[in-house]
Order: sequence, then C-alpha cells, then structure tokens
Amino acid sequence: MKRYSIASIPGDGIGREVVPAAIDVLTTAAERCGFAVDFRHFDWSCQTYLETGKMMPDDGLDRLRDHDAVFLGAVGYPGVPDHISLWGLLLPIRREFEQYVNLRPVRLLPGIASPLRDKAPGDINFWVVRENSEGEYSQVGGRTGTGEDEIVLQQAIFTRRGTDRILRYAFDFARRLGRKHVTSATKSNGLYHSMPFWDERFAAIGTEYPDVATDQYHVDILAARFVMSPERFDVVVGSNLFGDILSDLGPGITGTIAVAPSANLNPERRFPSMFEPVHGSAPDIAGQGIANPIGQIWSGAMMLEHLGEAEPAALVMRALAIALTDPDIAKPPDLGGNGTTAGLAEAIRTILLG
Amino acid sequence: MKRYSIASIPGDGIGREVVPAAIDVLTTAAERCGFAVDFRHFDWSCQTYLETGKMMPDDGLDRLRDHDAVFLGAVGYPGVPDHISLWGLLLPIRREFEQYVNLRPVRLLPGIASPLRDKAPGDINFWVVRENSEGEYSQVGGRTGTGEDEIVLQQAIFTRRGTDRILRYAFDFARRLGRKHVTSATKSNGLYHSMPFWDERFAAIGTEYPDVATDQYHVDILAARFVMSPERFDVVVGSNLFGDILSDLGPGITGTIAVAPSANLNPERRFPSMFEPVHGSAPDIAGQGIANPIGQIWSGAMMLEHLGEAEPAALVMRALAIALTDPDIAKPPDLGGNGTTAGLAEAIRTILLG
Ligand SMILES: CC(C)[C@H](C(=O)O)[C@@H](O)C(=O)O
Ligand SMILES: CC(C)[C@H](C(=O)O)[C@@H](O)C(=O)O
Repeated sequence: MKRYSIASIPGDGIGREVVPAAIDVLTTAAERCGFAVDFRHFDWSCQTYLETGKMMPDDGLDRLRDHDAVFLGAVGYPGVPDHISLWGLLLPIRREFEQYVNLRPVRLLPGIASPLRDKAPGDINFWVVRENSEGEYSQVGGRTGTGEDEIVLQQAIFTRRGTDRILRYAFDFARRLGRKHVTSATKSNGLYHSMPFWDERFAAIGTEYPDVATDQYHVDILAARFVMSPERFDVVVGSNLFGDILSDLGPGITGTIAVAPSANLNPERRFPSMFEPVHGSAPDIAGQGIANPIGQIWSGAMMLEHLGEAEPAALVMRALAIALTDPDIAKPPDLGGNGTTAGLAEAIRTILLG
Repeated sequence: MKRYSIASIPGDGIGREVVPAAIDVLTTAAERCGFAVDFRHFDWSCQTYLETGKMMPDDGLDRLRDHDAVFLGAVGYPGVPDHISLWGLLLPIRREFEQYVNLRPVRLLPGIASPLRDKAPGDINFWVVRENSEGEYSQVGGRTGTGEDEIVLQQAIFTRRGTDRILRYAFDFARRLGRKHVTSATKSNGLYHSMPFWDERFAAIGTEYPDVATDQYHVDILAARFVMSPERFDVVVGSNLFGDILSDLGPGITGTIAVAPSANLNPERRFPSMFEPVHGSAPDIAGQGIANPIGQIWSGAMMLEHLGEAEPAALVMRALAIALTDPDIAKPPDLGGNGTTAGLAEAIRTILLG
C-alpha cells in the first residue's frame, strides 16, 4: 500500500482542534482510495516558546525536511508577541523550504451565504497567487534614536528572481486553469521603488504569455473591486503583503474566513510544501470545540491534490459540499449554527464512507 | 463680505470635470450663506509634465502656501508613470504642508445601494484616520545588481513623532465624535520592525485616553471584517499604506468609490489643508462628462467645515442626500443611471437655491 508521511503541526489555539478533525477526514479519504497517510506530530507552539524560549527546536526544519508535506494548523497566541511566534515557526518554514507560492482559492461554497448581495456559488470563484518568501515581510530594519526622536526602519526587499518566479507561476497557473487572465496588484503610485519594479516585471513576463490577458490595479482600488465586482477575477497575483491582505478579503466576501484554505508551495518539489487554513488561532473561541474545521479540511484536500491524489481530494470536496448544504448537519457558530468541530468532521467522514 | 481664497488644482482626467462642477455647487452654497469663495486655478497635471518635464513649477508649493485651502481633483494619467506624477504633485503637497492626517468617512449615503446584503444607511458609518506623511510611502531605496541578480529595496520609515501625532489625532477625533472607540490596523505578525513599534505606540497613546475603547486587528483580517461586520467600527486608524487600502475598501462597501471624499489635514493650521475625492482620474471615462461629482462635492463640504463654515457644509450634504434619493434626478452611470456630471451638479445647486 502506498504511504505518505506528513508532518503535522497543530500549533496554537483552534489549530489544536481543527487539525485532528481534518486528519480523521483525510485518513478516511485515503483508506477509501487504497493508500495511507502517516501523520507525524510536532507539538511546536507558543506554549513551546513559553517553556523553552523557542518556537521550535534548533533542528526543527531538518526534522520536517523528509516529509512529503507539512500540515499546519495556526500559529500565534496572546502571551507571545506575534512577530516572535510567526518569525519563529511559520515564516522560516515558508522561506527555508522555498515555498515561494501561496495559493489561495476565493470560492463561494454551496450552502454558505456571501455577505455580498445576490452572489451565488460560481459568481465568486478565483485564485490569489501570493508571493510567499520575500518582499514586505522582512527582518531587515530596526529602531534608532531614543524617546521622541526614535525612528523605525522597515525594509522591503524584492529580488528579480523572486518576483519573476511568482509572476511566471501565476501565468502558468492561469494557463493550466484554462482561464487565461491574470490581474496584478500594484501600488506603484505610492511605493516608489518596489512597485514600479513589480509592474516592469509583470509587463516583461506577460510578453512570454501572449495568450494570457492581463490587467493591473493599485491595491487600494483592487480591494474595493473585490467587493464591487468579484466576477471579473480569474487569477490575481500580488506581493507577500498585498497577497496576504487580498487573500483574507477574498474569503471575507465568501462569507467566512474559517473555510478558506491555502497551499504554501515549493513548485520544484525540492522541499515539502505546507498546507494550512487562512484563519488564525482564534483565541476567542479556542478550547470550546466549536471551531469550523472546513478551512483545515480543504487545505488537506489541496495537500492530497499536491501529492498527486486527485481522486480523494475530489471526494473530500464533494463531501464538504454535501455537508454544507444538508440542513440536518449542524454547522459551527461562524456559519450561524450550533454544531461542533468534531460533529461536522464526523458528518463529513460519514459522507465519505457512504 | 467674508472671502476665502482657495487654490484649485483639477489635475488629470475626470478631475477636470468634477472640480468645476463642485465649484459651482460650493459657490452657490457660499452665496446663500453670505460669504464668497475665490477659486484660483492651477493647471498642473500630467499634461504639464509632458510639456515641461515637471508636474508643477519649482515654486509650485510657494504659490499654494497662502491660500486658505487646496481643492484638488485627481492626479495621474496614462503616459506618465504613476510614481512620477504622484511624487511630483500630490505627495509633495501632503508632505510639505504637513497634512499628516488623511480623514475619510466611510458612510452609506441614502439612495445608494451597498453591495453588502441588508445594509442601510446608518449600518455603515465610520471614519478612517490615515497617516498621510510618512511610513510605507517613501522614496528611500533603490535598485542594485543587474539582470537576473537585480534586487530592489523599498524603505518604510516610521518616526515616533509621526506615529504619535496620528494616533493622538485618532483618539481626539473619537472623543469629538462622541464614539469613543478606536481600532488600530496592524500587521505586527509579518512586518517585523514597523508594526510592533506601531502597536507599542498605540498602546502607549491609548493610556492617555482611558475613556476611549481600543482594539486592533491585523490588516488582512481587518479588511475581511470591513465586509463581514462594518457596524462594529467607529474610528479606524492606520499607517499610510494600510489607511490607503482600507479607505478605498470602505467606499467599496458603500456602493461606489466615486462618492467618497477625503481631507488632507494640517491640524495645526500652519499650512493649508487639501480636499480631494478618494477616486482617481478614471481615464476610462474621462472626457465624456459622465463622472460622478459627488466625491468632489462632498470633499468641498469637508473643506467648508474645515474653514469654519458648518452651515453651508450641512446644506450641501443635505442637498446631496435629496438629490440622491430623488428618482427624477438622473444619476451618473456608476450609480446605474444615465445622468451627467453637469446635470447632477446643477440639480444639487437647484436644491441649494430652493
Ligand atoms: C494616488 C495615490 C498616490 C493616492 C495614495 O495612495 O495616497 C491615492 O490612492 C489616495 O488614496 O489618495
Ligand atoms: C500569521 C501571518 C504571519 C500570516 C501572514 O501574514 O503570512 C497569515 O496572515 C497568513 O496569511 O498566512
């Protein structure tokens, strides 16, 4: 029997609830399709930090390296400053494993109401391709001067190699999708150096794909257009920060951030890719067993797909859709119901087995 | 008779159409209230740049300095790169005149449908207070290396003085508004130096205002919450870039970006403040006389208010509301009608005179 070895990092808060729930679902889907997924657990979290002063052990990345993929819950919890926890765990994995693509579907699922008037599934269905390894997220910079005179520098670093590869990925992806239209998020009117460069590379790479239509918007108006006319998008490519903002706003227009998945991809497959929901650790509801597991499960479906297992991935997505539209299955509070994490996951498993 | 002297800069594209329309309305409102507004025109634009190589003359800022306010249309047009046009005109005015506050209402107007389900005027009614003079918008940085090895640096610069003053403005404004709740836009999980500093200052300044409630969200989830629960906001304070994005997204949820105004304020009144709509020069519809003048007119109302003329400001806002809800007044295409810029402005003038 074929076996995959997956490193699972539940992390913090509701990550510890939705990861086990999703693992049950994925395990069932694998069994149905005649292969096995072995999850190896890494209990790295803000708790680890409080106990050891580190988010993960010094050889943490090496311990992950030989797995077929990483399955992550959420990182970050009150008590540890966010820049410490994230730069101690999530962000180093993305960077060390050259997961330079963060791929995020923005798709209205059946059974979920969009906050936008008159939108049905199909009306909102596009992808955000986010640069995931450089740009605005940087530890370069610092503070100088004291008291009233203090100034703080934050350097954004864009490389041509890093910019070109994400743009090419977006164009290739649009081709594969058969929806040959790429929209670039820019802000070249305000950000004097980085974004004119981004625009230049977008235009240059675009000429390699004459069959793909392009347009570009400054990120401010682009955010407004996500709300006003989401139908017009197919593939939206953005820098690390712009992609981050747009790929939370996207799920916002599809009703709940809790169902949105993401894939941190190393397209060359030199290193494991990582799959995690877009939502965070949600301290406000952690520990109650009511977190929506769908973002984590959908991330798992993207992981199966990445592993080459398209059939169980499709089965999981089908089961999600059935569960979401079945009025007899209790939905979690973010979807207006009074269901539990475990209850919804179990219902999805039952559908998979049925 | 009291007279105000206003520098008007129509700028590019539809700026050249909506500024004259708004001036007619403002002039009428002033007459009704027994004072005069003298508009002095400065024809600085991308056209100027193409002819002279400069967006404005070398002594441009000095020519504006002695006016009571600046009334700006829009800057930027195809043919001149955006970073050239904006850093040659709009951004130097904001900086030289220490207009460090960009104040932008997010308000659903009567007669305009929100793209959000079930939202009526009153449900969406808050303010974005945007830092307007430093932060991510910077000309510090550059390109180095050639070809495949090129790297581009973009420095964001946050000063304690600049950060504290915008935060204090937001808190004072919330007090004045009588809605004592300030939300901070951050991204301290990803932006390692600037945003932890921002959070620190937000917490510190917050202690000076124990009567004002505070909360903070990372800008990604905050953008999603603008869509999912706009009712919860009163005053949202953000850096230059975050404020920019949020204050376009805000008007997006109120139906059309074309009606949103902004005030670039020098609160100390050492220099003129500047009033301009949030929308841009809209090359796609420029020259057709169909641009919506409401953002420009509302910006004018904010200008009157800033000048101390609360009564005509209120009259203009009342006339806008009447015009927008009168089915016999033709609305411009962005509001789903077939009206013209001049027609709508004339209707508003007629209401003012009535
Ligand atoms: C034109 C551009 C530089 C400007 C900005 O980003 O400040 C605009 O988007 C605005 O919001 O006033
Ligand atoms: C937690 C945070 C650092 C992260 C990011 O900004 O990349 C998250 O928002 C995401 O989108 O994956």
